[in-house]
Amino acid sequence: MTSSSEGAPLFAVVMAGGSGTRFWPLSRRSRPKQLLPFAGGRSLLAATVGRLAPLVAPERTLVVTSAAVRSAVREELPQLPAENILAEPEGRDTAACIGWVAWRLARTSPSAIMVVVPADHLIPDGSALRSALSAAAATAYARGGLVTLGLRPTRPETGFGYVEVGEAVGTAGAHRVHAVKRFVEKPDRATAQQFLDAGSFRWNSGMFAWTVKAIEAAIREHLPELASGLDLLMATAETDGEAEALRRHYPSLQRISVDFGVMEKAAPVWAVSVEFEWSDVGSWGGLAEALPGSGAGVSMGDVAALDAERSVLVSDGPLVAAVGVRDLVVVATRDAVLVVPKDQVQRVKELVELLRAAGREELL
Amino acid sequence: MTSSSEGAPLFAVVMAGGSGTRFWPLSRRSRPKQLLPFAGGRSLLAATVGRLAPLVAPERTLVVTSAAVRSAVREELPQLPAENILAEPEGRDTAACIGWVAWRLARTSPSAIMVVVPADHLIPDGSALRSALSAAAATAYARGGLVTLGLRPTRPETGFGYVEVGEAVGTAGAHRVHAVKRFVEKPDRATAQQFLDAGSFRWNSGMFAWTVKAIEAAIREHLPELASGLDLLMATAETDGEAEALRRHYPSLQRISVDFGVMEKAAPVWAVSVEFEWSDVGSWGGLAEALPGSGAGVSMGDVAALDAERSVLVSDGPLVAAVGVRDLVVVATRDAVLVVPKDQVQRVKELVELLRAAGREELL
Repeated sequence: MTSSSEGAPLFAVVMAGGSGTRFWPLSRRSRPKQLLPFAGGRSLLAATVGRLAPLVAPERTLVVTSAAVRSAVREELPQLPAENILAEPEGRDTAACIGWVAWRLARTSPSAIMVVVPADHLIPDGSALRSALSAAAATAYARGGLVTLGLRPTRPETGFGYVEVGEAVGTAGAHRVHAVKRFVEKPDRATAQQFLDAGSFRWNSGMFAWTVKAIEAAIREHLPELASGLDLLMATAETDGEAEALRRHYPSLQRISVDFGVMEKAAPVWAVSVEFEWSDVGSWGGLAEALPGSGAGVSMGDVAALDAERSVLVSDGPLVAAVGVRDLVVVATRDAVLVVPKDQVQRVKELVELLRAAGREELL
Repeated sequence: MTSSSEGAPLFAVVMAGGSGTRFWPLSRRSRPKQLLPFAGGRSLLAATVGRLAPLVAPERTLVVTSAAVRSAVREELPQLPAENILAEPEGRDTAACIGWVAWRLARTSPSAIMVVVPADHLIPDGSALRSALSAAAATAYARGGLVTLGLRPTRPETGFGYVEVGEAVGTAGAHRVHAVKRFVEKPDRATAQQFLDAGSFRWNSGMFAWTVKAIEAAIREHLPELASGLDLLMATAETDGEAEALRRHYPSLQRISVDFGVMEKAAPVWAVSVEFEWSDVGSWGGLAEALPGSGAGVSMGDVAALDAERSVLVSDGPLVAAVGVRDLVVVATRDAVLVVPKDQVQRVKELVELLRAAGREELL
C-alpha cells in the first residue's frame, strides 16, 4: 500500500457474476466466460486474481459470483478462503453486487478501501494494473469520493464508454488524477475520433476504488431503494442466517449498474489516468484482437489449419481441421460445434435462443 | 432375366473396395465412403445391394471389399451369405478385383453372366438401373464381348470420362445398343460441350456386363500378367487354402483399372444407352449436388443453421451450429471437425496427409 492509505485495509472485489452466452459453445451455464481459458491456458478469473495477489492478500480478496458456478469458482481459486467467494442467488447488476460487499465490509472492516475489478478482462501487464489500482486506492483514501480507472484511448474505439476529465488536480504514484466531468455512452466513430484527438477523454474501464464509507454513502444518496434492500438483507441475515436471507431478499434488490446508478450522479468522482494493454474480450471476434496471433488468426486447443486467414479456431475436444477459411470463427466442444463468420459473431445469441426454444437445454 | 440369357445364371458383383479419404472425417479406414449413410440414412453400399435385389438373388450377389472393413460390410449386408463377401488383402484396382471374381466364377459357374457395379454411386431410380443392367446382361449374352452402361449426358460435365458410340446396332429391352468407338478421358469444358451437342457420346458409368468367359478371355489377351497372377492365386488356393493364397499373391497382382487395362483395348465393346439420375458423390462438394437440398444446402444429422447458404452441414455426433455461412462444408464427428469452403474440398486429402505425417493415426 502507498503511504497515504496506511492503516486502511485494502480489499479487492472481483466481480465474476457474468453468465454471457457470447462464447457459446465453450461458455455454458456451468462455465461462463470468466472461467474460460483465454489467459494463456488459465481462466480469465484465475488470471485476474493472480494479477491482484502481489497487491492484496488472499484473505482480503473477495470474489462475487453466481450460485450456479460457485463450486467451479472455488476449484479455480484454491488459494482463497472459501468464505471469500460470495454467491449471488441471481445477478442483479453491478450496483447490487458492489453494495452487498460494501454493506458486509461496513460491519467487519468499516475503514476498508475497496478496489473493484471485473473478472473477465485481459490485462497482460499485471504490474501496471497494480500500480494503477494502488494509485486509485490512495486517491480514494486521500480525496474521498469515488475513483475510476480511466484508460488513455489509443484508437477511436466505438465499443467502450468514455469519461471526460478536467485538468489534472494532482498525482498518485506515477499517475495523474483528474476530476471526472461526465460519463459518455459508446460513441459513434466520428465522436470517438474527436474524443481521441481532444486528449481529455478516457475509456471507462469498469475498474474502481473507494472507501467503504464513500460507496455506502453514495448508494444511500443515489440509490436509496437499493440501500433499503441491502439494510433489510443484512438485518435479516442476523436472524435467518445469510443463505436464507440472500435467497429471500437478494432477488428483490434494485437492478442497475454502478456506472448508471451511482458513478454518473455522484460527486466528486476522480479518474486516475492509466495506460496499459487492456481488453474486455466481448465476443469470439474480440478474442482475435485481444490474443496474440499470426495472420492465420488465433488457435486454441487441438487445431490443424491449412491456409487459414484471420480466423478464430478453438477446440475443447475434437480436432478442428480447417482448410482455406477466411475471417471465420470455429469453436468445437464435445457436444457442439459453432461456425460463424467473424463479422456475425453477435448472432451467436440468436443461435443460443434458437436452441433454448428447441429445448436443447443440455447444450446451454 | 430377359429371355436371351435364359439358362445363364446372372451374378452381380459390387465393387466396394474404396478407402477414399475425401469424406474425412466421416470416412475413416474402418468406415470408407461406401459405408457412409449418404443414401437417405442407409449406406451407399446397402442401397446399392438393395437396388440389385429384385434382379439378382442374394446367393448370386458378390461384394468385393477390403480385409480392413470386411466385418463392417457383413454387418451392413446381413441378407448376403458370408462367403459372398470377398475381401482383398489390399486394393489392386478394378481389373484385379474383377479378374479375381471372374476366375472364381469360372470354376463354379462357368456359364455365368456378371454385372459389375461400384458400391458408392447414388441412383435414386432402382427400377431404371435394373432395366439397364438387365439389357446389358442380355447384350453380353447375345453378342459376346464386353458391355458398358453409357449414360446419356445431360450437361457438359468435365468430371467424368466419356465413350464415343456409333450408330445403334440394335436394342435390348427398351435400350439401344451401340458399338463403342473409343474411350475418352475427362474433357475440358469446351470439349464436354461438343460431346453433349454431338449426341454420340455417353458418360462412362463404370458399370459393366459380360459373360465370365468373355472377361476372362479379354484379361488373358490384354493383361496377360494379371491373368498369370490370377492363375497362380487360384492354383495356390487349392493347396494353401484361399486366405493364405490371397495374402501371398493378391498384393502382387498387376495394378490397373479395368477401363484402361481392358475396355479401351478390347473388341467388341458395346454400350447400352441408358438414362437415369446418377452421381458418383466424389467429394463433400459433390454431395451438395447429389442430394436433394434447399437453398441452404444439405444438412445431415444434428444441425442447427441460421441463414446458411449452399452449404454442406454434417453431424455424426456433436451439434453443428452454423450462422451466416456461405458455400461452406462443415463435418463434425466425435473426435474431429472439418471446415472447408466448398470450392476447396479437394484439399481434404492434403489435410489427411498432414495428420498422417503428424502421427494422428487415431483420426484416420
